[in-house]
Amino acid sequence: MADRAKNFYAGPAALPLEALQRAQAELLDFAGTGMSIMEHSHRGPHYDAVHKEALSLLRELLGVPDDYDVLLLQGGARQQFAMVPMNLVPEGGSADYVITGNWSVGAHSEAAIVGRARVAATTLEDGGFTRVPRLDELDRDPEAAYLHITSNNTLYGTQWAVDGGTPYPFSDDVPLVADMTSDLLCRPIDVSRFGVIYAGAQKNVGPAGVTVVIVRKSLVAGARTDLPEVFRYASHAAKDSLWNTAPTFAIYMLRNTLAVIADRGGAEEMERRARAKSSMLYALIDAHPEFFRCPVEPSSRSIMNVVFRLPSEALEAELLAAAKEAGMFGLKGHRKVGGLRASLYNAVEVEWVEALVDLMEKFHHSHK
Amino acid sequence: MADRAKNFYAGPAALPLEALQRAQAELLDFAGTGMSIMEHSHRGPHYDAVHKEALSLLRELLGVPDDYDVLLLQGGARQQFAMVPMNLVPEGGSADYVITGNWSVGAHSEAAIVGRARVAATTLEDGGFTRVPRLDELDRDPEAAYLHITSNNTLYGTQWAVDGGTPYPFSDDVPLVADMTSDLLCRPIDVSRFGVIYAGAQKNVGPAGVTVVIVRKSLVAGARTDLPEVFRYASHAAKDSLWNTAPTFAIYMLRNTLAVIADRGGAEEMERRARAKSSMLYALIDAHPEFFRCPVEPSSRSIMNVVFRLPSEALEAELLAAAKEAGMFGLKGHRKVGGLRASLYNAVEVEWVEALVDLMEKFHHSHK
Repeated sequence: MADRAKNFYAGPAALPLEALQRAQAELLDFAGTGMSIMEHSHRGPHYDAVHKEALSLLRELLGVPDDYDVLLLQGGARQQFAMVPMNLVPEGGSADYVITGNWSVGAHSEAAIVGRARVAATTLEDGGFTRVPRLDELDRDPEAAYLHITSNNTLYGTQWAVDGGTPYPFSDDVPLVADMTSDLLCRPIDVSRFGVIYAGAQKNVGPAGVTVVIVRKSLVAGARTDLPEVFRYASHAAKDSLWNTAPTFAIYMLRNTLAVIADRGGAEEMERRARAKSSMLYALIDAHPEFFRCPVEPSSRSIMNVVFRLPSEALEAELLAAAKEAGMFGLKGHRKVGGLRASLYNAVEVEWVEALVDLMEKFHHSHK
Repeated sequence: MADRAKNFYAGPAALPLEALQRAQAELLDFAGTGMSIMEHSHRGPHYDAVHKEALSLLRELLGVPDDYDVLLLQGGARQQFAMVPMNLVPEGGSADYVITGNWSVGAHSEAAIVGRARVAATTLEDGGFTRVPRLDELDRDPEAAYLHITSNNTLYGTQWAVDGGTPYPFSDDVPLVADMTSDLLCRPIDVSRFGVIYAGAQKNVGPAGVTVVIVRKSLVAGARTDLPEVFRYASHAAKDSLWNTAPTFAIYMLRNTLAVIADRGGAEEMERRARAKSSMLYALIDAHPEFFRCPVEPSSRSIMNVVFRLPSEALEAELLAAAKEAGMFGLKGHRKVGGLRASLYNAVEVEWVEALVDLMEKFHHSHK
């Protein structure tokens, strides 16, 4: 068997080894039933217990208040780009979007097909999305159905609400909707301040194929009803996300992953690790500004995705090859951005990052 | 380890043991990469090969012509209930629906929200969906965007195009759209006669969490463009179903399952087995009409889901308990219908059905 890879993929990404081992051990025989969890009915007691545990672990780990629904849906964040405005923008209404990268562009563009969608701020002009905006840069519509942000931008390595950075743009009048696909459960958050939080599971909390949606119950109750039932939050909320056949194995793996996160100390410990991992990398990068360069403004630097450049593309390719040789994968930056990117999601072990920093140190020493 | 269960669930359902064993063996280390297939990027070469193989196995096993797209989507058949009319009913247009049970009611009701949806026929009045309609009962709109059928009705145990039954209602002018969730790949079909075929994988071809959609390219090209991109067939067709993050593990299991089906002899062999399995049960039921009763008209009897009643609910409960005792699960009929139901999907082994028939014989003998 090959050594465990040091997996820095941007998502789908590393999962906790214990979550995978648990799945492997019981793949053919779940809880002594003589069948795989994949073969169980989504209406049967064995799957039902897994489903409920996934939901309750999410509630517990994120401190979700009772007046919020937690939904497990399909279609990824991309489908939420459409479902959020379909449910929440009333006839003739409008929603506000903050544009901080590729994903917010996508979210805004789907909303503009569904209804009216304003741009409350964009940092594109600012040299390619190298920061999130300051609060005073937001041109907010007080009548907006909601304000939408991407809480962490995987391609550009920026994040809201980091130390010394822009806090989440909460307001009492306009619900905040956050795409947290790439930073859900990387740290504690105050769910009660958000209207909707959604996240594809495949970065921080599970495999691809299931999407977590946390939505204030009053928004579900007031949502539009002139759309297909399958796209209504209310359909899924009323049936604990068993309105239709759930993606059972993806939810089972979500459960396994959340159980490991709980075991390790929950959101606080995930934040401690994310800070430890990202600090190591940023410290190294900043120590050699003539060789490594992080284009992101310090007050927007993500603790999830660290992007950086080397003096030339040739050197970048050489470092990537050396990393691969050392069992490190997924370090190539997104094709739109170039350079390198280390994604440091919950299941990326601190030791992997130590090994990467060590490799980068040596690479710098031999190539400076 | 518990003995392998004899799994007659209506879906999610049994998977081929070899498909599960393959998954178990490589769950922690896919192809010597030191990571699970779940941890691989959907843009990386290892997952890409799996994805392409799933698509090509579907093409090969179903004989899909080149002028059809094969898509792997999320959201189940329920989401196709909405996506089919969203894509294919033009402004001011209408679609025809044949109502043969719960699922066609659901498909029709979503379409009626999206646009205009006519009922071309219903067999509800006929004593509770105990058959599919004859062709001469169809009141067809020659201008309809399509005619929609549910090819197999899991709850009621009816199926189109069985021996002596109603053939698929093809026409040269109106594309036929078929929800084949519960009988895709249970037998060979002539894909070229259909406009769209869709199926949640979780009955005959894989686990829950991935939906197969086979759609004529001319329909994709002529589809509406005023809907969110995520719901357009054209988005997914243009990117080989990697427009957004695919449900990678579900597609991997689909691949594993299709590989076993190919190995066993493909659609012809699946049909031979389905006929063998269902004939055994129908023969036993018909041999003791005073004790067992199948409410379905013989010319509509499904080779996938055999529904039957006993003289009393007490006897039904007793038989269910005896079956469970003998390691047979999922035989309870749908709550809307009552009675018993044996689902005989591709991965249900002939020996399991032999064991069930044997149990039923003995039960009859001791209770008649």
